Amino acid sequence: MGVLLFEEFELLDVTGPIEMFGCLPDQINLAFIAEQKGLVTSSQSLAVMAMYDFASAPKLDFLFVPGGKGTRTEVNNSPLLSWINTQALQVELILSVCTGAALLAKAGLLDHHKATSNKLAFDWVKSQGPNTQWIRKARWVDDGKIITSSGVAAGIDMSLYVIARLYGESKRDEVIRQTEYMFNEDPEKDFFA
Amino acid sequence: MGVLLFEEFELLDVTGPIEMFGCLPDQINLAFIAEQKGLVTSSQSLAVMAMYDFASAPKLDFLFVPGGKGTRTEVNNSPLLSWINTQALQVELILSVCTGAALLAKAGLLDHHKATSNKLAFDWVKSQGPNTQWIRKARWVDDGKIITSSGVAAGIDMSLYVIARLYGESKRDEVIRQTEYMFNEDPEKDFFA
Repeated sequence: MGVLLFEEFELLDVTGPIEMFGCLPDQINLAFIAEQKGLVTSSQSLAVMAMYDFASAPKLDFLFVPGGKGTRTEVNNSPLLSWINTQALQVELILSVCTGAALLAKAGLLDHHKATSNKLAFDWVKSQGPNTQWIRKARWVDDGKIITSSGVAAGIDMSLYVIARLYGESKRDEVIRQTEYMFNEDPEKDFFA
Repeated sequence: MGVLLFEEFELLDVTGPIEMFGCLPDQINLAFIAEQKGLVTSSQSLAVMAMYDFASAPKLDFLFVPGGKGTRTEVNNSPLLSWINTQALQVELILSVCTGAALLAKAGLLDHHKATSNKLAFDWVKSQGPNTQWIRKARWVDDGKIITSSGVAAGIDMSLYVIARLYGESKRDEVIRQTEYMFNEDPEKDFFA
């Protein structure tokens, strides 16, 4: 799984899902990728290490795109959008959290697809994908190859859903026990919509 | 708030709470501190940056201690335990998540205090603090100056509780809206106990 990082990504958008997927080292290897490798600073001021740049990233099966303040800049970053686009052709599954959906939309991946995003920035995200069928009331939306989730912590619920879809419910329940996360299993029960 | 980092800390133990406290930049500054400054790798393979070592850390008001596999080593790390001890005398509030409680116990801070920890490692943590009143069924335990929480995601609930205790419920609710986290507000409702 390639995890895209950029300046001012939202910390928990990345680390919530990564905590869950990281509980399955036999199934999933994580690769942290940014336009330039090196330290990338989250909106919560913690700097994390991108081990790969776009050129050196390994071949991916899954692509993970977080949101955060930084997406306001990255929607205008052509090399990043075109990297997302190239990866999208090759991967099996694309996941986004929060305003990460704006990057997928701007890259053209959400045209004529269903998607969601976080509630406080919903209208801005919508404006990035005028041909997307945006669903406001949803913890996450599974459109087959692309699964988008609502704001920040909703990404954790989406990840547990994805783990069950890929590896079964008993694997998901193991991860839940390890992380003591109270899974919100109904994607339509969206308290924040 | 000083956030202690060590090799193989549990990623979400740190980043869940930091996401919440990081929503209050006017109230809380975060300082990431390790025995040596530089990159510290979490159990989920993400490396994060400790900007301070023990000698250069700023004066703290709050001390935050995560858990993770690394605590099995750190309970035998005298410089780290003695740094925790020195900080404990000066700070207003000490928070731990998961097996971070083992470090507080080993540093002698939990003697004759109430505390909790994560459920899968509970017996090991207990053995680090034979004079502690361990409470198994609790999402978090508020003992006044020390607040300990259960495994991984329980740290997020504890953090929201702490934000309400320090700054009021309306601040907490703002953070909840921003992060779309489904707060588990009853500390005694512990599904994993």
